[in-house]
Amino acid sequence: MTNRIFKTLLCTLVIIAGVCCFAAEQVKPKYIFLFIGDGMSFPQRMAAAEYCKQAGLAPLAINAMKYHAVTTTNSANSFITDSAASGTAIACGTKTNNGMIGVDPQGKPLVSVAKAAKKAGRKVGIITSVTINHATPASFYANNISRGNYYQIALDMVNSGFDYFGGGGASKFDNKKDKKYCGNIYELAEKAGYFVSLEGKKFNEINPSMKRVMSFGAVGALPYAIDSKEGDLRLADFVRQAITQLDNPNGFFIMAEGGKIDWMCHSNDAGTTIKEIIDFDKAVSVALEFAKKHSSETLVVVTGDHETGGLTLGFAGTAYKSFIKRISLQRCSRDKFNHKLRELSQKNELTFEAAKKLAAENFGFEFVAGGKAKKLTMQLSAAEEKALKKAYNVQFPGNKNRKDARGVYDSTFVSAVIRLFNNKASLAWTSGAHTALPVNTTADGVGAENFTNMIDNTDISKKLKELL
Amino acid sequence: MTNRIFKTLLCTLVIIAGVCCFAAEQVKPKYIFLFIGDGMSFPQRMAAAEYCKQAGLAPLAINAMKYHAVTTTNSANSFITDSAASGTAIACGTKTNNGMIGVDPQGKPLVSVAKAAKKAGRKVGIITSVTINHATPASFYANNISRGNYYQIALDMVNSGFDYFGGGGASKFDNKKDKKYCGNIYELAEKAGYFVSLEGKKFNEINPSMKRVMSFGAVGALPYAIDSKEGDLRLADFVRQAITQLDNPNGFFIMAEGGKIDWMCHSNDAGTTIKEIIDFDKAVSVALEFAKKHSSETLVVVTGDHETGGLTLGFAGTAYKSFIKRISLQRCSRDKFNHKLRELSQKNELTFEAAKKLAAENFGFEFVAGGKAKKLTMQLSAAEEKALKKAYNVQFPGNKNRKDARGVYDSTFVSAVIRLFNNKASLAWTSGAHTALPVNTTADGVGAENFTNMIDNTDISKKLKELL
Repeated sequence: MTNRIFKTLLCTLVIIAGVCCFAAEQVKPKYIFLFIGDGMSFPQRMAAAEYCKQAGLAPLAINAMKYHAVTTTNSANSFITDSAASGTAIACGTKTNNGMIGVDPQGKPLVSVAKAAKKAGRKVGIITSVTINHATPASFYANNISRGNYYQIALDMVNSGFDYFGGGGASKFDNKKDKKYCGNIYELAEKAGYFVSLEGKKFNEINPSMKRVMSFGAVGALPYAIDSKEGDLRLADFVRQAITQLDNPNGFFIMAEGGKIDWMCHSNDAGTTIKEIIDFDKAVSVALEFAKKHSSETLVVVTGDHETGGLTLGFAGTAYKSFIKRISLQRCSRDKFNHKLRELSQKNELTFEAAKKLAAENFGFEFVAGGKAKKLTMQLSAAEEKALKKAYNVQFPGNKNRKDARGVYDSTFVSAVIRLFNNKASLAWTSGAHTALPVNTTADGVGAENFTNMIDNTDISKKLKELL
Repeated sequence: MTNRIFKTLLCTLVIIAGVCCFAAEQVKPKYIFLFIGDGMSFPQRMAAAEYCKQAGLAPLAINAMKYHAVTTTNSANSFITDSAASGTAIACGTKTNNGMIGVDPQGKPLVSVAKAAKKAGRKVGIITSVTINHATPASFYANNISRGNYYQIALDMVNSGFDYFGGGGASKFDNKKDKKYCGNIYELAEKAGYFVSLEGKKFNEINPSMKRVMSFGAVGALPYAIDSKEGDLRLADFVRQAITQLDNPNGFFIMAEGGKIDWMCHSNDAGTTIKEIIDFDKAVSVALEFAKKHSSETLVVVTGDHETGGLTLGFAGTAYKSFIKRISLQRCSRDKFNHKLRELSQKNELTFEAAKKLAAENFGFEFVAGGKAKKLTMQLSAAEEKALKKAYNVQFPGNKNRKDARGVYDSTFVSAVIRLFNNKASLAWTSGAHTALPVNTTADGVGAENFTNMIDNTDISKKLKELL
């Protein structure tokens, strides 16, 4: 026993010596990628992974990463965070209240890892599939007590000095009603030395000789992956472009957000969410490919900012059976489907029969005579069809489009279709808001071993700052 | 740069030398504890943790453990496992089909980590809060193509040669209809050398001079924590007893299951689930206390076998607000509440007003005149009260107890009460079955570093076997 203790001590000392030796000479990643799947927690990642498995697609790269950390997401004032507070936590390392961007609960400005990287001499790129001045990307360059001050946040972008902004364009970029209005954001950006490409029009002109670049692929958010056409610019294209623009001897920090994952989780549309995650995974894969070529110098971290929708990988009606493969029957996003219905309605061509046909085409529903459906199939029972009819009559009374109390087009029928489709694919949701489920942070490369076991979302910023 | 590469190489070599030195002399834990929270995944653990926080209780020990591993749970034939397949995976390290115990999908018997521990000269204890021949504990000592063969499984328990069984008693222990019937299980156990204590009657007589012990605290499962009385034997008591019984120079392997977590998740009763997890946590704490005293010799691993119920930490109606603290308003389990209602019904004393009073007493509901409830409070709106009335009329037509199509007492009203209460506590569910959400495996102590990043439930058995 004494012999064993001696040997153990000796081994420990040798390891400590090695670690100390390393600590003195800690290799820090020259290239840091931080990917944020907005609204992407365990259920979203696993639903997408299982869909890929059942549909015979390649496995997700994000789940195959070496290090995994269970990550808590609560904000300063709620167990359930919003994207502003979680974005601030991930970017700046400090808990703040829901709604606040880059400031602490008292409104004091914080320093994001992106700003710290810039200060340390690295080039910085911020990319998102939604609007560039939305909460998550904003947390990396802006300081504002309200995420709703889009114009002011966009001003912070212009004045950030960051080297690359890409993805979806800014919202309210010419908001003359804002008390701090001082001009069109894109014009101000050009004055600040940015080469600005809108709607992807000058995407191919962008080259490393340009010092500062804003490369936006759409007026607002990029289209959903499920709705996008051949040639549409995707998140992966902007990550690729950012790498080309930012590679330099001092290294870079790139944050890229898959923001529309969250949007479709709010709408409880699992099919569009899953396709969006697969698209997000392609963007991460660009970074992982780069990391392969620069393996001793690159860190790739992938996280989510919170769970959205209360998605569950099972449903009462399907019990222990899983039909996630059926997601492949979905042909368009919930939004696009609603658009198709409204178009028919505006042309006075919408009937319940026409709506059923559209639902069959876009979601694989099978309407059988008399509603004599086989259980656990895509056939609709009489009760299911009746529920759709009831929802249809709410959204399209007299076959016209109804507006709800807020003056927004009603989507009762669309919601009913999506809910039924999701349930037939053995998935269910409980909320149109976020939930407090922890998220999964995964990491590969230099310093990746810091992202393991249980961490808080504020730790991501802290650990990344240490690695700068 | 060449200098840096040289130093890096040197440091790496020194570390490798240390690790090799350790590998040759790997310290293996003398004492191994494996705790399984049945149906306990991230939402259950986090709901309980947040409840403790909001209610001012001590933090959960299980979440404070050092190592965390995201753990996948799918079975051989489904994305959504049952407890037999997941129990077999955790115990034996092999995926099998839902319903199968300790055998592979072809029915070939497997060797569990408990059997391997016994073979390696350790003492072995199996404990559960549900029936001892239920799927999870059975996976550690039995081999049967069907979890439903309770009698045969109990026979395997008698013939296991294991040293300690504790917790809830066996079901169908005297099933004369079983084709392999050969006597009352407890009588057979005594013949096989076991000291048998039923319903906790001889609990205090048990002492280390007894070679083999069956120490059961109830006819079947132990009572729910929320319903238990002062002096009732709890999971922690059996873990404490097992330690006393099994401590010996060759060490032990103890598996303890919090089985009723799952039962109340099936019933979508969050309050009872949370109290059950806190009770489970106390049992784990007994092991962690032991580990403190034997820190160089003990490993404690805590996992779940799957998620049950599709629990989400948020609900549409409460959006970004969290009211988990309200769980403290719940006074009894769903089952006990149903029992109270049925008692009144049998005494012909049940009216809707009486049922409302009972719901107010046991769940903190406030019924206000005219249903003019303040939003987000425990006050019931007119619509909420109407929904309860409707459910009441189903369960108690003419104030009598209704039986459903299967001849089982209907619980429509109880379900409606529980659902409403859970939603008011900002929690929601999507299923009465399991879901495929990964679970969290946490570990402390010698060899705990093996339980980190992303693992499969089969890895738990494999890693534990390596550590024997």
